[in-house]
Amino acid sequence: MPGYTHVEGLSSADVQRLRSVWAPLADSVRALIDASIRSEVDADEVAAVQAQIDAATARLQAKQIDGPFGVRFTSDGDRMPWGNPAIGIRNPIAPPLVIVKDPDGGVRTDFHLGAPYEGPPGHVHGGMVAMVLDHVLGEVAASDSDRPRFTGTLTIRYLRATPLGDLHAEGRITRTDGIKAFASGHVSDAQGITAEAEGVFILPKWARS
Amino acid sequence: MPGYTHVEGLSSADVQRLRSVWAPLADSVRALIDASIRSEVDADEVAAVQAQIDAATARLQAKQIDGPFGVRFTSDGDRMPWGNPAIGIRNPIAPPLVIVKDPDGGVRTDFHLGAPYEGPPGHVHGGMVAMVLDHVLGEVAASDSDRPRFTGTLTIRYLRATPLGDLHAEGRITRTDGIKAFASGHVSDAQGITAEAEGVFILPKWARS
Repeated sequence: MPGYTHVEGLSSADVQRLRSVWAPLADSVRALIDASIRSEVDADEVAAVQAQIDAATARLQAKQIDGPFGVRFTSDGDRMPWGNPAIGIRNPIAPPLVIVKDPDGGVRTDFHLGAPYEGPPGHVHGGMVAMVLDHVLGEVAASDSDRPRFTGTLTIRYLRATPLGDLHAEGRITRTDGIKAFASGHVSDAQGITAEAEGVFILPKWARS
Repeated sequence: MPGYTHVEGLSSADVQRLRSVWAPLADSVRALIDASIRSEVDADEVAAVQAQIDAATARLQAKQIDGPFGVRFTSDGDRMPWGNPAIGIRNPIAPPLVIVKDPDGGVRTDFHLGAPYEGPPGHVHGGMVAMVLDHVLGEVAASDSDRPRFTGTLTIRYLRATPLGDLHAEGRITRTDGIKAFASGHVSDAQGITAEAEGVFILPKWARS
Protein backbone atom coordinates (compact mmCIF):
# COMPACT_ATOMS: atom_id res chain seq x y z
CA MET A 1 0.00 0.00 0.00
CA PRO A 2 1.57 3.26 -1.09
CA GLY A 3 0.65 6.68 0.28
CA TYR A 4 2.74 6.99 3.41
CA THR A 5 4.36 10.14 2.09
CA HIS A 6 7.74 11.34 3.24
CA VAL A 7 7.63 15.15 3.14
CA GLU A 8 11.04 16.65 2.37
CA GLY A 9 12.30 19.86 3.88
CA LEU A 10 9.77 20.33 6.66
CA SER A 11 11.28 21.02 10.09
CA SER A 12 9.41 20.43 13.35
CA ALA A 13 9.00 24.22 13.55
CA ASP A 14 7.36 24.19 10.09
CA VAL A 15 5.00 21.45 11.25
CA GLN A 16 4.06 23.51 14.33
CA ARG A 17 3.43 26.57 12.14
CA LEU A 18 1.21 24.56 9.77
CA ARG A 19 -0.64 23.14 12.75
CA SER A 20 -1.33 26.66 14.05
CA VAL A 21 -2.76 27.63 10.63
CA TRP A 22 -4.99 24.62 9.95
CA ALA A 23 -6.15 23.33 13.35
CA PRO A 24 -8.14 26.51 14.18
CA LEU A 25 -9.89 26.30 10.77
CA ALA A 26 -11.03 22.74 11.55
CA ASP A 27 -12.25 23.90 14.99
CA SER A 28 -14.35 26.58 13.30
CA VAL A 29 -15.82 24.02 10.89
CA ARG A 30 -16.62 21.77 13.88
CA ALA A 31 -18.69 24.60 15.40
CA LEU A 32 -20.42 25.06 12.03
CA ILE A 33 -21.25 21.33 11.87
CA ASP A 34 -22.86 21.54 15.32
CA ALA A 35 -24.83 24.67 14.37
CA SER A 36 -25.98 23.08 11.07
CA ILE A 37 -27.71 20.37 13.09
CA ARG A 38 -29.15 22.50 15.91
CA SER A 39 -30.10 25.74 14.17
CA GLU A 40 -33.72 26.88 13.86
CA VAL A 41 -33.29 29.99 11.73
CA ASP A 42 -35.69 30.49 8.81
CA ALA A 43 -35.30 29.25 5.23
CA ASP A 44 -34.09 32.60 3.80
CA GLU A 45 -31.40 32.83 6.45
CA VAL A 46 -30.30 29.23 5.77
CA ALA A 47 -29.98 30.03 2.05
CA ALA A 48 -27.90 33.15 2.80
CA VAL A 49 -25.62 31.22 5.17
CA GLN A 50 -25.24 28.46 2.59
CA ALA A 51 -24.04 30.98 -0.01
CA GLN A 52 -21.51 32.27 2.52
CA ILE A 53 -20.24 28.73 3.15
CA ASP A 54 -20.01 27.95 -0.58
CA ALA A 55 -17.91 31.10 -1.03
CA ALA A 56 -15.57 30.03 1.80
CA THR A 57 -15.24 26.55 0.27
CA ALA A 58 -14.40 27.98 -3.16
CA ARG A 59 -11.58 30.05 -1.62
CA LEU A 60 -10.09 26.95 0.02
CA GLN A 61 -10.48 24.93 -3.18
CA ALA A 62 -8.61 27.59 -5.21
CA LYS A 63 -5.44 25.65 -4.39
CA GLN A 64 -5.73 22.10 -3.13
CA ILE A 65 -4.14 18.67 -3.46
CA ASP A 66 -5.56 16.00 -5.75
CA GLY A 67 -7.17 13.22 -3.74
CA PRO A 68 -7.13 12.64 0.01
CA PHE A 69 -4.55 13.89 2.52
CA GLY A 70 -2.71 10.60 3.13
CA VAL A 71 -0.39 10.12 6.08
CA ARG A 72 2.71 12.31 5.94
CA PHE A 73 6.04 11.97 7.68
CA THR A 74 8.82 14.56 7.85
CA SER A 75 12.60 14.19 7.86
CA ASP A 76 12.53 15.15 11.56
CA GLY A 77 10.25 12.20 12.28
CA ASP A 78 7.05 14.17 12.77
CA ARG A 79 3.94 12.21 11.81
CA MET A 80 1.08 14.15 10.25
CA PRO A 81 -2.09 12.02 10.13
CA TRP A 82 -4.01 15.29 9.86
CA GLY A 83 -6.81 14.04 7.63
CA ASN A 84 -7.73 11.12 9.90
CA PRO A 85 -11.43 11.03 10.96
CA ALA A 86 -10.53 10.00 14.54
CA ILE A 87 -7.40 12.07 15.31
CA GLY A 88 -6.91 14.42 12.35
CA ILE A 89 -6.43 18.03 13.47
CA ARG A 90 -7.35 19.16 9.94
CA ASN A 91 -10.43 16.89 9.73
CA PRO A 92 -13.57 18.57 11.13
CA ILE A 93 -15.24 15.15 11.37
CA ALA A 94 -12.68 14.09 14.01
CA PRO A 95 -13.46 15.07 17.65
CA PRO A 96 -10.30 14.99 17.36
CA LEU A 97 -9.03 12.35 19.77
CA VAL A 98 -5.75 13.28 21.47
CA ILE A 99 -3.97 9.99 22.12
CA VAL A 100 -1.67 9.78 25.17
CA LYS A 101 0.86 6.93 25.24
CA ASP A 102 1.70 5.62 28.69
CA PRO A 103 5.18 4.34 29.61
CA ASP A 104 3.75 0.82 29.99
CA GLY A 105 2.64 0.80 26.35
CA GLY A 106 -1.05 1.48 26.96
CA VAL A 107 -2.81 4.40 25.34
CA ARG A 108 -5.63 6.60 26.60
CA THR A 109 -7.67 9.57 25.51
CA ASP A 110 -10.13 11.98 27.13
CA PHE A 111 -12.57 13.51 24.70
CA HIS A 112 -15.94 15.20 24.33
CA LEU A 113 -18.70 14.11 21.94
CA GLY A 114 -21.59 16.47 21.25
CA ALA A 115 -24.60 16.69 18.94
CA PRO A 116 -22.81 15.57 15.72
CA TYR A 117 -22.17 12.12 17.23
CA GLU A 118 -25.70 11.39 18.48
CA GLY A 119 -27.42 8.10 17.65
CA PRO A 120 -30.09 7.22 20.26
CA PRO A 121 -31.39 10.52 21.69
CA GLY A 122 -28.80 12.08 24.02
CA HIS A 123 -26.41 9.20 23.46
CA VAL A 124 -23.44 8.40 21.23
CA HIS A 125 -24.10 6.45 18.00
CA GLY A 126 -22.90 2.86 18.51
CA GLY A 127 -20.85 3.20 15.32
CA MET A 128 -18.98 6.17 16.76
CA VAL A 129 -18.18 4.15 19.88
CA ALA A 130 -16.81 1.50 17.49
CA MET A 131 -14.79 4.15 15.64
CA VAL A 132 -13.15 5.33 18.88
CA LEU A 133 -12.40 1.76 20.00
CA ASP A 134 -11.02 0.74 16.59
CA HIS A 135 -8.71 3.73 16.62
CA VAL A 136 -7.53 3.38 20.23
CA LEU A 137 -6.85 -0.35 19.86
CA GLY A 138 -5.12 0.26 16.52
CA GLU A 139 -2.83 2.85 18.13
CA VAL A 140 -1.90 0.48 20.93
CA ALA A 141 -1.29 -2.34 18.47
CA ALA A 142 1.14 -0.14 16.52
CA SER A 143 2.80 1.38 19.59
CA ASP A 144 5.42 -1.34 20.05
CA SER A 145 6.56 -1.05 16.46
CA ASP A 146 7.49 1.48 13.78
CA ARG A 147 5.38 -0.52 11.37
CA PRO A 148 1.63 -0.11 10.90
CA ARG A 149 -0.78 -2.82 11.97
CA PHE A 150 -4.26 -3.07 10.51
CA THR A 151 -7.40 -4.30 12.20
CA GLY A 152 -8.04 -7.99 11.52
CA THR A 153 -10.99 -8.57 13.84
CA LEU A 154 -12.75 -6.18 16.21
CA THR A 155 -15.38 -7.28 18.73
CA ILE A 156 -17.33 -4.71 20.72
CA ARG A 157 -19.63 -5.38 23.67
CA TYR A 158 -22.00 -2.53 24.41
CA LEU A 159 -22.76 -2.70 28.15
CA ARG A 160 -25.05 0.33 28.14
CA ALA A 161 -25.72 3.38 25.98
CA THR A 162 -22.85 5.90 26.08
CA PRO A 163 -24.12 9.39 26.95
CA LEU A 164 -23.00 12.40 24.92
CA GLY A 165 -20.51 14.53 26.85
CA ASP A 166 -17.10 13.98 28.44
CA LEU A 167 -15.75 10.49 27.80
CA HIS A 168 -12.61 8.43 28.19
CA ALA A 169 -11.15 5.53 26.22
CA GLU A 170 -8.10 3.38 26.75
CA GLY A 171 -6.45 0.29 25.36
CA ARG A 172 -3.55 -2.04 25.91
CA ILE A 173 -1.81 -4.96 24.24
CA THR A 174 -2.74 -8.24 25.88
CA ARG A 175 -0.30 -10.36 23.84
CA THR A 176 1.57 -10.58 20.54
CA ASP A 177 2.12 -13.61 18.36
CA GLY A 178 4.31 -13.09 15.28
CA ILE A 179 2.51 -10.79 12.87
CA LYS A 180 -0.50 -10.54 15.20
CA ALA A 181 -1.10 -8.27 18.18
CA PHE A 182 -4.07 -8.77 20.51
CA ALA A 183 -5.45 -5.65 22.16
CA SER A 184 -8.31 -4.81 24.50
CA GLY A 185 -9.83 -1.58 25.69
CA HIS A 186 -12.96 0.29 26.66
CA VAL A 187 -14.93 3.52 26.53
CA SER A 188 -16.16 4.97 29.83
CA ASP A 189 -18.06 7.91 31.26
CA ALA A 190 -17.93 9.24 34.83
CA GLN A 191 -20.12 6.29 35.98
CA GLY A 192 -17.84 3.60 34.50
CA ILE A 193 -17.40 1.46 31.42
CA THR A 194 -20.04 1.68 28.68
CA ALA A 195 -18.42 -0.50 25.98
CA GLU A 196 -15.56 -2.99 25.84
CA ALA A 197 -13.55 -4.13 22.83
CA GLU A 198 -11.08 -6.79 21.83
CA GLY A 199 -9.14 -6.66 18.60
CA VAL A 200 -6.65 -8.65 16.58
CA PHE A 201 -4.27 -6.45 14.60
CA ILE A 202 -2.12 -7.72 11.76
CA LEU A 203 1.09 -6.46 10.20
CA PRO A 204 0.30 -6.02 6.49
CA LYS A 205 2.22 -8.17 3.99
CA TRP A 206 3.96 -5.17 2.45
CA ALA A 207 5.41 -4.14 5.85
CA ARG A 208 6.76 -7.57 6.84
CA SER A 209 10.55 -7.81 6.68
CA MET B 1 -34.49 6.49 27.63
CA PRO B 2 -36.42 9.64 26.78
CA GLY B 3 -35.76 11.80 23.73
CA TYR B 4 -37.81 10.15 21.01
CA THR B 5 -39.77 13.32 20.41
CA HIS B 6 -43.21 13.35 18.89
CA VAL B 7 -43.47 16.57 16.87
CA GLU B 8 -47.03 17.90 16.79
CA GLY B 9 -48.57 19.60 13.80
CA LEU B 10 -46.00 18.71 11.14
CA SER B 11 -47.47 17.22 7.95
CA SER B 12 -45.46 15.12 5.50
CA ALA B 13 -45.40 18.18 3.23
CA ASP B 14 -43.88 20.21 6.08
CA VAL B 15 -41.23 17.55 6.57
CA GLN B 16 -40.39 17.65 2.83
CA ARG B 17 -40.12 21.44 2.95
CA LEU B 18 -37.79 21.31 5.97
CA ARG B 19 -35.72 18.67 4.20
CA SER B 20 -35.35 20.93 1.16
CA VAL B 21 -34.12 23.76 3.43
CA TRP B 22 -31.64 21.87 5.60
CA ALA B 23 -30.25 19.03 3.45
CA PRO B 24 -28.56 21.41 0.94
CA LEU B 25 -26.90 23.29 3.84
CA ALA B 26 -25.39 20.04 5.12
CA ASP B 27 -24.18 19.22 1.58
CA SER B 28 -22.41 22.57 1.45
CA VAL B 29 -20.76 21.92 4.82
CA ARG B 30 -19.65 18.48 3.55
CA ALA B 31 -17.83 20.19 0.65
CA LEU B 32 -16.26 22.60 3.17
CA ILE B 33 -15.06 19.70 5.33
CA ASP B 34 -13.39 18.11 2.30
CA ALA B 35 -11.76 21.42 1.31
CA SER B 36 -10.55 22.04 4.89
CA ILE B 37 -8.53 18.85 4.65
CA ARG B 38 -7.21 19.20 1.09
CA SER B 39 -6.64 22.94 0.72
CA GLU B 40 -3.16 24.40 0.24
CA VAL B 41 -3.96 28.12 0.32
CA ASP B 42 -1.70 30.37 2.40
CA ALA B 43 -2.07 31.30 6.08
CA ASP B 44 -3.65 34.72 5.45
CA GLU B 45 -6.29 33.20 3.20
CA VAL B 46 -7.04 30.48 5.78
CA ALA B 47 -7.54 33.16 8.45
CA ALA B 48 -9.89 35.13 6.16
CA VAL B 49 -11.90 32.00 5.32
CA GLN B 50 -12.09 31.10 9.00
CA ALA B 51 -13.59 34.51 9.82
CA GLN B 52 -16.18 33.94 7.07
CA ILE B 53 -17.06 30.52 8.54
CA ASP B 54 -17.33 31.92 12.08
CA ALA B 55 -19.74 34.57 10.79
CA ALA B 56 -21.88 31.90 9.09
CA THR B 57 -21.91 29.82 12.28
CA ALA B 58 -22.99 32.81 14.38
CA ARG B 59 -25.94 33.40 12.03
CA LEU B 60 -27.08 29.79 12.43
CA GLN B 61 -26.60 29.93 16.21
CA ALA B 62 -28.79 33.06 16.47
CA LYS B 63 -31.72 30.69 16.96
CA GLN B 64 -31.04 27.08 17.88
CA ILE B 65 -32.29 24.26 20.07
CA ASP B 66 -30.69 23.45 23.42
CA GLY B 67 -28.75 20.21 23.25
CA PRO B 68 -28.61 17.65 20.45
CA PHE B 69 -31.23 17.04 17.72
CA GLY B 70 -32.73 13.81 19.08
CA VAL B 71 -34.91 11.57 16.96
CA ARG B 72 -38.20 13.15 15.96
CA PHE B 73 -41.44 11.59 14.82
CA THR B 74 -44.45 13.35 13.31
CA SER B 75 -48.18 12.68 13.61
CA ASP B 76 -48.09 11.43 9.99
CA GLY B 77 -45.51 8.81 10.98
CA ASP B 78 -42.49 10.50 9.38
CA ARG B 79 -39.25 9.70 11.16
CA MET B 80 -36.63 12.45 11.31
CA PRO B 81 -33.27 11.07 12.49
CA TRP B 82 -31.68 14.11 10.86
CA GLY B 83 -28.84 14.57 13.33
CA ASN B 84 -27.57 10.99 13.02
CA PRO B 85 -23.86 10.71 12.07
CA ALA B 86 -24.54 7.79 9.68
CA ILE B 87 -27.83 8.77 7.98
CA GLY B 88 -28.63 12.30 9.17
CA ILE B 89 -29.44 14.61 6.26
CA ARG B 90 -28.73 17.59 8.56
CA ASN B 91 -25.47 16.14 9.89
CA PRO B 92 -22.47 17.06 7.69
CA ILE B 93 -20.46 14.26 9.34
CA ALA B 94 -22.81 11.67 7.81
CA PRO B 95 -22.03 10.55 4.21
CA PRO B 96 -25.17 10.33 4.60
CA LEU B 97 -26.10 6.70 4.06
CA VAL B 98 -29.42 6.21 2.24
CA ILE B 99 -30.84 2.95 3.56
CA VAL B 100 -33.01 0.88 1.21
CA LYS B 101 -35.25 -1.77 2.79
CA ASP B 102 -35.86 -4.84 0.65
CA PRO B 103 -39.16 -6.75 0.71
CA ASP B 104 -37.38 -9.74 2.27
CA GLY B 105 -36.39 -7.63 5.30
CA GLY B 106 -32.78 -7.04 4.31
CA VAL B 107 -31.34 -3.55 4.00
CA ARG B 108 -28.71 -2.18 1.65
CA THR B 109 -27.01 1.10 0.86
CA ASP B 110 -24.76 2.44 -1.88
CA PHE B 111 -22.56 5.30 -0.78
CA HIS B 112 -19.38 7.22 -1.50
CA LEU B 113 -16.61 7.90 1.02
CA GLY B 114 -13.97 10.51 0.19
CA ALA B 115 -11.07 12.28 1.91
CA PRO B 116 -12.84 12.94 5.27
CA TYR B 117 -13.09 9.19 5.94
CA GLU B 118 -9.46 8.25 5.19
CA GLY B 119 -7.45 6.14 7.65
CA PRO B 120 -4.65 4.24 5.87
CA PRO B 121 -3.63 6.31 2.82
CA GLY B 122 -6.29 6.06 0.09
CA HIS B 123 -8.41 3.75 2.22
CA VAL B 124 -11.35 4.03 4.61
CA HIS B 125 -10.60 4.27 8.35
CA GLY B 126 -11.42 0.90 9.95
CA GLY B 127 -13.58 2.73 12.48
CA MET B 128 -15.69 4.23 9.70
CA VAL B 129 -16.20 0.74 8.24
CA ALA B 130 -17.36 -0.26 11.73
CA MET B 131 -19.69 2.76 11.87
CA VAL B 132 -21.33 1.77 8.56
CA LEU B 133 -21.72 -1.87 9.62
CA ASP B 134 -23.08 -0.97 13.06
CA HIS B 135 -25.66 1.26 11.46
CA VAL B 136 -26.71 -1.14 8.67
CA LEU B 137 -27.02 -4.07 11.07
CA GLY B 138 -28.90 -1.91 13.56
CA GLU B 139 -31.38 -0.87 10.86
CA VAL B 140 -32.00 -4.47 9.85
CA ALA B 141 -32.40 -5.53 13.48
CA ALA B 142 -35.09 -2.86 13.95
CA SER B 143 -36.81 -3.45 10.60
CA ASP B 144 -39.13 -6.22 11.79
CA SER B 145 -40.41 -4.11 14.66
CA ASP B 146 -41.66 -0.64 15.52
CA ARG B 147 -39.46 -0.75 18.56
CA PRO B 148 -35.78 0.24 18.63
CA ARG B 149 -33.08 -2.37 19.17
CA PHE B 150 -29.64 -1.43 20.44
CA THR B 151 -26.34 -3.06 19.62
CA GLY B 152 -25.36 -5.70 22.20
CA THR B 153 -22.30 -7.15 20.50
CA LEU B 154 -20.72 -6.32 17.15
CA THR B 155 -17.90 -8.37 15.58
CA ILE B 156 -16.17 -7.15 12.43
CA ARG B 157 -13.73 -9.11 10.29
CA TYR B 158 -11.62 -6.92 8.04
CA LEU B 159 -10.74 -9.05 4.99
CA ARG B 160 -8.75 -6.31 3.25
CA ALA B 161 -8.45 -2.53 3.34
CA THR B 162 -11.55 -0.77 1.96
CA PRO B 163 -10.59 1.76 -0.73
CA LEU B 164 -12.07 5.26 -0.65
CA GLY B 165 -14.70 5.73 -3.37
CA ASP B 166 -17.97 4.06 -4.29
CA LEU B 167 -19.00 1.40 -1.79
CA HIS B 168 -21.92 -0.84 -0.88
CA ALA B 169 -23.13 -2.29 2.40
CA GLU B 170 -25.95 -4.66 3.24
CA GLY B 171 -27.33 -6.62 6.13
CA ARG B 172 -29.98 -9.14 7.03
CA ILE B 173 -31.48 -10.81 10.09
CA THR B 174 -30.16 -14.34 10.52
CA ARG B 175 -32.45 -15.21 13.46
CA THR B 176 -34.39 -13.74 16.38
CA ASP B 177 -34.70 -15.11 19.89
CA GLY B 178 -37.04 -13.21 22.22
CA ILE B 179 -35.54 -9.79 22.94
CA LYS B 180 -32.49 -10.56 20.76
CA ALA B 181 -32.02 -10.27 17.00
CA PHE B 182 -28.96 -11.69 15.24
CA ALA B 183 -27.84 -9.88 12.11
CA SER B 184 -25.01 -10.20 9.61
CA GLY B 185 -23.77 -8.03 6.79
CA HIS B 186 -20.81 -6.71 4.86
CA VAL B 187 -19.17 -3.76 3.14
CA SER B 188 -17.99 -4.27 -0.45
CA ASP B 189 -16.34 -2.42 -3.33
CA ALA B 190 -16.50 -3.33 -7.04
CA GLN B 191 -14.01 -6.17 -6.41
CA GLY B 192 -16.04 -7.82 -3.64
CA ILE B 193 -16.38 -7.92 0.13
CA THR B 194 -13.86 -5.97 2.21
CA ALA B 195 -15.32 -6.45 5.71
CA GLU B 196 -17.94 -8.72 7.28
CA ALA B 197 -19.90 -8.20 10.47
CA GLU B 198 -22.14 -10.09 12.86
CA GLY B 199 -24.17 -8.38 15.52
CA VAL B 200 -26.51 -9.15 18.38
CA PHE B 201 -29.16 -6.47 18.89
CA ILE B 202 -31.27 -6.17 22.01
CA LEU B 203 -34.64 -4.58 22.71
CA PRO B 204 -34.01 -2.07 25.52
CA LYS B 205 -35.79 -2.67 28.85
CA TRP B 206 -37.86 0.50 28.52
CA ALA B 207 -39.30 -0.68 25.17
CA ARG B 208 -40.29 -4.19 26.25
CA SER B 209 -44.04 -4.67 26.61
